[in-house]
Amino acid sequence: MLISQLIGTWRGEGAGEYPTIESFTYAEELTFKDVGKPFLLYQQLTWSPSGAPMHTETGFLRAPGPEAIEFIIAQPTGQTELAEGTYTTTDGGFELRLEARIMNSATAKIVDATQRRIAVADNQLTYDFAMAAVGVPMTHHLAASLTRVD
Amino acid sequence: MLISQLIGTWRGEGAGEYPTIESFTYAEELTFKDVGKPFLLYQQLTWSPSGAPMHTETGFLRAPGPEAIEFIIAQPTGQTELAEGTYTTTDGGFELRLEARIMNSATAKIVDATQRRIAVADNQLTYDFAMAAVGVPMTHHLAASLTRVD
Repeated sequence: MLISQLIGTWRGEGAGEYPTIESFTYAEELTFKDVGKPFLLYQQLTWSPSGAPMHTETGFLRAPGPEAIEFIIAQPTGQTELAEGTYTTTDGGFELRLEARIMNSATAKIVDATQRRIAVADNQLTYDFAMAAVGVPMTHHLAASLTRVD
Repeated sequence: MLISQLIGTWRGEGAGEYPTIESFTYAEELTFKDVGKPFLLYQQLTWSPSGAPMHTETGFLRAPGPEAIEFIIAQPTGQTELAEGTYTTTDGGFELRLEARIMNSATAKIVDATQRRIAVADNQLTYDFAMAAVGVPMTHHLAASLTRVD
């Protein structure tokens, strides 16, 4: 599978910012699990520096074509994200650049669109996440650097 | 939590039909996991009678108001489902009636809308799932009956 280098568990640290909130840091664990089908099961958890659970999201990552990537994500904050984009080979790995359409539930804070860049090389995974939300245009929100632990 | 009766693992059997496919039966396992936040993590797996993996989906279930339910789901077939609806108390449990908006990826078979009815009473969970997809209007697709195993 084009994206099989992601299979495993990744841990590290991230930092978040947005015009409407205080900046923050977090610990993160990602898993991309091979369930024997042509896609990976994705689960993400973050914690505050004090160890309190912060965010979690889940979904599926798939590569339906040689350069096409689809990242299908459910958010407990009331959004679904359907992120689509490209796969590019890099030194030791690959990079995904994805733009997402969003659906918001009736009670959710409104997110209009998101962008994700995910880079994997050897045993390092880094990502950047930007979003247009609550009236703010597309703006950087999260960046993290993770190391494969399993 | 209004929906805490769902927390645990449920196993059972289901049957599927749709005008465009052969009818089929399946074994299913659902988990609704309490992750210490005001929502439940949902994971679903089905297998054919021969034991081959069939479908899987994942997401979050939450009850943001006393009678409001949101079920936020990612599908590895390229859809996100944002299902919203009502919670009704029943003898020994409750019933959820949800209607979902769908986003389809560029390579997905097109699903236009879905309906889910989920009933929990004592240690039984039953559901019905209907969908409008691939040009067929809203039509019954799946029904299953599961028992709590954990």
